[in-house]
Amino acid sequence: MLAKKYKEMLTKKSVIRELSEFATARGKEIGYENVFDYSLGNPSIPVPQKVTDYLIRTLSEENPMALHGYSPSLGIPEAKEKLAESLNRRFGMNYKGTHIFMTSGAAGAIAHAVRCVTEPGDEVLAFAPFFPEYIPYINHSGAVLKTVAPQTKDFQINFEEFEKMLTDKVAAVLINTPNNPSGVAYSEETLTKLANLLEEKSKEFGHEIYLISDEPYREITFDGVESPYPSKFYKYTLSCYSFSKSLSLPGERIGYVAVHPDCPEAETMVVMMGQISRGIGHNCPASLFQLAVAENADLTADLSVYEKNMNIIYDTLMELGFTCVRPNGTFYIFPKALEDDAVAFCKKALKYDLVLVPADSFGCPGYFRMAYCIDTEKVERSMVALKKFVETEYPNR
Amino acid sequence: MLAKKYKEMLTKKSVIRELSEFATARGKEIGYENVFDYSLGNPSIPVPQKVTDYLIRTLSEENPMALHGYSPSLGIPEAKEKLAESLNRRFGMNYKGTHIFMTSGAAGAIAHAVRCVTEPGDEVLAFAPFFPEYIPYINHSGAVLKTVAPQTKDFQINFEEFEKMLTDKVAAVLINTPNNPSGVAYSEETLTKLANLLEEKSKEFGHEIYLISDEPYREITFDGVESPYPSKFYKYTLSCYSFSKSLSLPGERIGYVAVHPDCPEAETMVVMMGQISRGIGHNCPASLFQLAVAENADLTADLSVYEKNMNIIYDTLMELGFTCVRPNGTFYIFPKALEDDAVAFCKKALKYDLVLVPADSFGCPGYFRMAYCIDTEKVERSMVALKKFVETEYPNR
Repeated sequence: MLAKKYKEMLTKKSVIRELSEFATARGKEIGYENVFDYSLGNPSIPVPQKVTDYLIRTLSEENPMALHGYSPSLGIPEAKEKLAESLNRRFGMNYKGTHIFMTSGAAGAIAHAVRCVTEPGDEVLAFAPFFPEYIPYINHSGAVLKTVAPQTKDFQINFEEFEKMLTDKVAAVLINTPNNPSGVAYSEETLTKLANLLEEKSKEFGHEIYLISDEPYREITFDGVESPYPSKFYKYTLSCYSFSKSLSLPGERIGYVAVHPDCPEAETMVVMMGQISRGIGHNCPASLFQLAVAENADLTADLSVYEKNMNIIYDTLMELGFTCVRPNGTFYIFPKALEDDAVAFCKKALKYDLVLVPADSFGCPGYFRMAYCIDTEKVERSMVALKKFVETEYPNR
Repeated sequence: MLAKKYKEMLTKKSVIRELSEFATARGKEIGYENVFDYSLGNPSIPVPQKVTDYLIRTLSEENPMALHGYSPSLGIPEAKEKLAESLNRRFGMNYKGTHIFMTSGAAGAIAHAVRCVTEPGDEVLAFAPFFPEYIPYINHSGAVLKTVAPQTKDFQINFEEFEKMLTDKVAAVLINTPNNPSGVAYSEETLTKLANLLEEKSKEFGHEIYLISDEPYREITFDGVESPYPSKFYKYTLSCYSFSKSLSLPGERIGYVAVHPDCPEAETMVVMMGQISRGIGHNCPASLFQLAVAENADLTADLSVYEKNMNIIYDTLMELGFTCVRPNGTFYIFPKALEDDAVAFCKKALKYDLVLVPADSFGCPGYFRMAYCIDTEKVERSMVALKKFVETEYPNR
């Protein structure tokens, strides 16, 4: 008989997927260029030419047996050393290659990190609004996800709620900064307060509370301000990274977990992740891409388009009277809907070929997400539709 | 606190890894070309030039956003259709692309297949000798691996033992043909008998017993005889495949699960595997390699060296009086040791710089495995060492 747990999951339709299917279908009717599809977080800029050149050169020149041979189960040592050096250079850290575990993107990174620091039944706390995939990521590992209500004022942490939920059962806290869907980066103040609280509670409970930090948007920041690096604030941090967004390589599934060098047993944790892999059938990302990202570790795609898009959208939203925290990074913006029911709001928007995602599944009802990883020219055209939508449907706002 | 289960795994040393480490260390002393390292199953022949050319051409010419964009969670539809067509052409099957789920090699394929057809606590039966990684692959999924004693006469199935163990608790049976480590392919007779028994018992128990067929060596067969395709015999079959061996791409982690088209709910099972992925952090193999293997689905590397090596080793083993079933394929051979304790036997062999793997961890004590994916010239030199070893250590055999 087929596994009940997974079969039952099929009956639940994903809102984002339904919206994306609508956008595709509507695109066939009126041309996809006329559908203002803000539903999906697929990068809209190409991988840097330097990465493509590296891939082609490596395929042309390297011994294919060495190039395509089995990667050691923790990742290719030379690649891990280069990635560690890049993190050290950029964030003043002190990683060695042995603190890095190579994964299939951030999803793989979180899958390993959570299994490494939890026992079945342990709680993992995350903060709303959160990426809805955290639910299967955490709950299928055997741990239990609990989510802290949002602080909608600025989308920093709701510490009052958090403290209430931070009990002895909590083995790990999962953060995502800069955040999908809010676009907000946690401030130094927030991270300091978080670290202090985790230290205090770890002492009180007599066991470490680990911080799992999901950081795929680390390099996409605005106004020339870098996003504070969470590991700098707390030594029990596992940084989960993906090159999907920074290098526009989402389909190639490449990322890592970097365990803080001062975390007790940091290198043991990396070896444990190799054991975890044996049970979940992962066994390293593609060798070719391990080498390619390590060789280009300091590089990013030309991410400036996201800031340009954000400014256009943010200014229009302000002009139209929306409530919205200005994003510090990512390619998301997270305004409050113009009626309490964000699902109804987003449904009305579809009439104007605007595909917006209601944030109920992100744990933040009443808000909606726009993923502006699309061409600026299209963003500009969509603002006309947005104005028409708001002025027609909400004339007395 | 760190997860006990995975931390405890670190205390158990892998025999194969220890031997491989010995080989590397000894290689530094006397030159690796003088260490006859039969420990590891890493292909010794290059990927076909056609595949490399395809990769370079695709990287040079394709739109990078389309090429490196997110793959749909079940795999790229066009790639899956090409793979289905190739299986249909070669094995007279009737797959559609929707029967294929793309995975990170055979390890990923088994991880998804076993979760799809078992509930926690269900038994999965495998046959000794078996690939030792089956233990974490199955047991970490929540199911329980039980292994059937070997039939050492010919390494077909020990049906007497199997029938005793095939109880109502068994949700799936896991086979590997051609087999690592025996090199033997299950005959049509064996597969027919297996299918009949599974059908009979499925009826008796009132639930299907699924067949998970691990087939990474499918194309490496000898004497011009193909290995019978298990799905042809039993419709409840999930074929788990990897391109690691046939295309010499082990580091790129690319394979699939193909669910028999006549299996009830076959397409649902593929969609379920997409849900399973969300929990284990897999989310598809690299897009670039999905495209590359699909485009070259009928191709293999020049696998003839493995047959050449096998013949040299088999003839020498016969000459020296070993008991050994002649392999039908793979790059393994599986002789009986010349004393009851194969670990002691393999330890003595190290003195002659012969790295052989005792088969205790394969569930078949008293035997040893040689992985002959090495240069033929080295195989020939190693036969001199083998003769010297046997004649010196076992003069009265």
